[in-house]
Amino acid sequence: MLAVARGDRPADVVFRHGRVVNVFTAEVEGVDVAVAGSRIAGLGAYEGAETVDLDGAYLLPGFIDAHVHIESSMATPPEFARAVVPRGTTTVVSDPHEIANVHGLAGIRYMLAASEGLPLSVFVMASSCVPATHMGTAGAELDASALAELTDPRVLGLAELMNFPGAIYGDDGVLAKLRAFAGRVVDGHAPGVVGQALNAYVAAGPRSDHECTTPEEAREKLRRGLFVFLRQATNAQNLLDLLPALTPANRRRAAFCTDDRQPPDLLDEGGIDAMLRMAIGRGLAPVEAVRLATLNPAEYFGLHDRGAVAPGRRADLVVVRDLEALEVEDVYAAGRHVAHAGATLSWPDPPRPAPPAPSMHVEARRVDFRIPARDGRVRVIGVVPDQIVTERLELAPTVRGGEVVADPERDLLKIAVVERHTGSGRVGVGLVSGIGLKGGAIAGTVAHDHHNIICIGADDADMHAAVAAVADLGGGLVVVNGGKVAASLPLPVGGLMSPAPIEAIRRDLDAVVDAARSLGSPLHDPFMAMAFLALEVIPTLKITDLGLIDVDAFSPVSLWVE
Amino acid sequence: MLAVARGDRPADVVFRHGRVVNVFTAEVEGVDVAVAGSRIAGLGAYEGAETVDLDGAYLLPGFIDAHVHIESSMATPPEFARAVVPRGTTTVVSDPHEIANVHGLAGIRYMLAASEGLPLSVFVMASSCVPATHMGTAGAELDASALAELTDPRVLGLAELMNFPGAIYGDDGVLAKLRAFAGRVVDGHAPGVVGQALNAYVAAGPRSDHECTTPEEAREKLRRGLFVFLRQATNAQNLLDLLPALTPANRRRAAFCTDDRQPPDLLDEGGIDAMLRMAIGRGLAPVEAVRLATLNPAEYFGLHDRGAVAPGRRADLVVVRDLEALEVEDVYAAGRHVAHAGATLSWPDPPRPAPPAPSMHVEARRVDFRIPARDGRVRVIGVVPDQIVTERLELAPTVRGGEVVADPERDLLKIAVVERHTGSGRVGVGLVSGIGLKGGAIAGTVAHDHHNIICIGADDADMHAAVAAVADLGGGLVVVNGGKVAASLPLPVGGLMSPAPIEAIRRDLDAVVDAARSLGSPLHDPFMAMAFLALEVIPTLKITDLGLIDVDAFSPVSLWVE
Repeated sequence: MLAVARGDRPADVVFRHGRVVNVFTAEVEGVDVAVAGSRIAGLGAYEGAETVDLDGAYLLPGFIDAHVHIESSMATPPEFARAVVPRGTTTVVSDPHEIANVHGLAGIRYMLAASEGLPLSVFVMASSCVPATHMGTAGAELDASALAELTDPRVLGLAELMNFPGAIYGDDGVLAKLRAFAGRVVDGHAPGVVGQALNAYVAAGPRSDHECTTPEEAREKLRRGLFVFLRQATNAQNLLDLLPALTPANRRRAAFCTDDRQPPDLLDEGGIDAMLRMAIGRGLAPVEAVRLATLNPAEYFGLHDRGAVAPGRRADLVVVRDLEALEVEDVYAAGRHVAHAGATLSWPDPPRPAPPAPSMHVEARRVDFRIPARDGRVRVIGVVPDQIVTERLELAPTVRGGEVVADPERDLLKIAVVERHTGSGRVGVGLVSGIGLKGGAIAGTVAHDHHNIICIGADDADMHAAVAAVADLGGGLVVVNGGKVAASLPLPVGGLMSPAPIEAIRRDLDAVVDAARSLGSPLHDPFMAMAFLALEVIPTLKITDLGLIDVDAFSPVSLWVE
Repeated sequence: MLAVARGDRPADVVFRHGRVVNVFTAEVEGVDVAVAGSRIAGLGAYEGAETVDLDGAYLLPGFIDAHVHIESSMATPPEFARAVVPRGTTTVVSDPHEIANVHGLAGIRYMLAASEGLPLSVFVMASSCVPATHMGTAGAELDASALAELTDPRVLGLAELMNFPGAIYGDDGVLAKLRAFAGRVVDGHAPGVVGQALNAYVAAGPRSDHECTTPEEAREKLRRGLFVFLRQATNAQNLLDLLPALTPANRRRAAFCTDDRQPPDLLDEGGIDAMLRMAIGRGLAPVEAVRLATLNPAEYFGLHDRGAVAPGRRADLVVVRDLEALEVEDVYAAGRHVAHAGATLSWPDPPRPAPPAPSMHVEARRVDFRIPARDGRVRVIGVVPDQIVTERLELAPTVRGGEVVADPERDLLKIAVVERHTGSGRVGVGLVSGIGLKGGAIAGTVAHDHHNIICIGADDADMHAAVAAVADLGGGLVVVNGGKVAASLPLPVGGLMSPAPIEAIRRDLDAVVDAARSLGSPLHDPFMAMAFLALEVIPTLKITDLGLIDVDAFSPVSLWVE
């Protein structure tokens, strides 16, 4: 590379007649770029074995996604890469938190192994909150010493520290994890945390946050020293709300992240590229927007080998014809032409390591969904459309034959979480309102964060059939009506991902969602709504295999109001 | 600290009614600051055991000097700290390059030990170019494996890579050092390197440069990804020339450094504080100037525990009454009040480790300064006032009694470099013009970079006496006239530093400079001029113990023109 840089040897490729977005200076330079092997050798006048005539197009550094759970794409890393690379993302910093809750270190190691040899650089943050709490049963528990076993150089630090009360109050286990990653990057996650609590959280060690929802919150977090990741996930879209918080002085400490994006969003809208278009559409100068997607996260994570078109850095390059429209035409990763016009080009087959054997220890026929009737009212989870918080309802149950039953007429359905990791046979059963099924049942293994089997139904028999179908698939999403599987999406990798092409995953996902909606659900995506009903750290009333959880009281609570 | 941050326990100190310079957002915040022990716990409303009423004064993060050779202060680290801390500098990143050339790893370890327990945080970059070349004899040679032995956590990376040709051309030894510090910070030093050579230099690994002299050079280096340190040394003052290169978009990648500052400058003008005043005087917004001296170098070096007034960071704090005038009133280091009104307050006595025994193996009476006469002209070093480059003169020598002699009437003096490290008895003798002594001799052990004894005289006997006096001191600067020592500055630590109070060093330095000037030298500082005449990497004609060096040819050259 040095010989090419100093002009003593021709480059492998020279990009000519391009306009280079210089993220160091926020300038556009009309200068040629020489690549030697996987690296940029220099900018200037160079000879090359091959020439790419950019004909006035813009050359940008490859985009970096500062925080993503690849599992939310439901695709394995190679298929995730096939979705995001043609749209310009060449590096992601991932938190394999979902599969870690199922398979522990084996899950994280699978994600590392399955992301080798891709046109996408996949870095990993060590999942900090496995399990989220002990008010549910996960497939693994990762303490500080377990996390310290993650010595792969692609492991950059500690992932989003969601246990913000633990950080603020100096919980021993949390502090041990922070000590284990002392001097390395620690990502934060502190929704709504401001004032003195924010001071304590920042003092504990996290350096970033991606949970801001208002410009005021983002401003305060920036002031206290947190790097702010602007998030545009499928289920949490904060970018446009937060842009007003950025100023020429503070935006060096901001970056873009997608967090969780499902296949339809990834395939139809894109990822970081979509965020760039949105930000530019709101008036952010394109070159400044590009800095948020390249140099800023590279600096934050200490990834000094990328994030800029500069000598010695990886030749991760993106070509766009129009800097405002920002439609990606071509993508180069480590000097190799990997995508054109929205599709990946050939790439040597990456290793496809075998995933861990499914964590699926369930005897569906022995699961008991019955709720013996008693006097009094019951607590009911109230779904709020398009939000992951719930309401705590108290209603008179519908009783038949001495049992509390689902009553679709009242939009009262049964909900159950069937523990699948340890073979305990444990099941938490409750009632939910707002899902809207008129009959049948839906079930799935995408159930944050423990990812047990969650099932909602109008009918116990269909619930049995749905849980059995999910177990048979080794994980996935299913819709059952009249005892028959109406649609299914197999997710045999951790119960979270499919090895299928992402377009096939998307078709199956559309099919299960359509089937659930055709059973009467008015929700945009009943499965996504269901997936968060087991997340016992988000208010207000949730359910795990241990039963109903009162999140405000941070403890299990009886179905029956005393 | 967490209990204080969340308001559950009173702070040790609360700074009230101050205006906090927020370097993350470039805002001034009217907010109180709570300190717990050595750390900032939080910003906001806090109770404290002690209160400091700032009465509207500004509270700034302690300043960071991004690159300094402490040896140039001629003081040991405790005395250097006493000079810079009252002026607001609480952290320096030092390159102990000078003492490393004398004492090798022992010298670097002495600097680490002698900078413990100070109100100043002293970080060290591993000196990358010891010796500068083999065209002279240093006291040590540090290859990659020797540098790798520097495992002290205060060693942050590899110091200024002055051997830029070695980096550009991929010299094995240079590449080995870069490999040894892979993934860590590598500082650069590439005066005038632009174009393809700059591409190669950056591609090799250095991340910064502090040798820019023009805005054009600074702009190009910023564009190619180097962090630019603006330097204001005693002998190289670039700040005002470079300020025009900074823009709102690129200045996040710039910082201040002093590189080499002698006692009079440190005591009369200051260091980083002086640079802040100069930059503000030229119109840079004070808050932006402060970022260059705090957050920017902290981010560059990955010092995430300082550089901002923010929760969890070190309570290194500076109080100024007027943000434009920027006169430092009070300084706090790690929460402790360490300076007020320009003077340090009491501080527990730091360890004063014994320095290495002097590297002084010279028998002065056996040194032979004679130059037998021959026919022809001689090469003469031509001093250029206030510059470290020299001219290559060719003159007819003055011959008396079969010998070439010094001829003060023609401003032709003898110059000699006496090897002191190995006891070789080697001496390089030549002629110099431009020093201007009318009689006597000056000698010293500050002679970049090998730091042998360098001597310039009008008279061989006085040169003998001067070399003998320097050797007797174990190193230092002396002026001799008529066989008697007229003035001296003892520098027994490496021949570079004195353990005396810095004010005493300054008095002795003034005295030797005055004495040399009273011998007829018109130079501002004849000793500084002399110190660079042995630096065989700076054009054009220099001298080492191996004799005259033609720097352009990068080889020794005869005194006599053939």
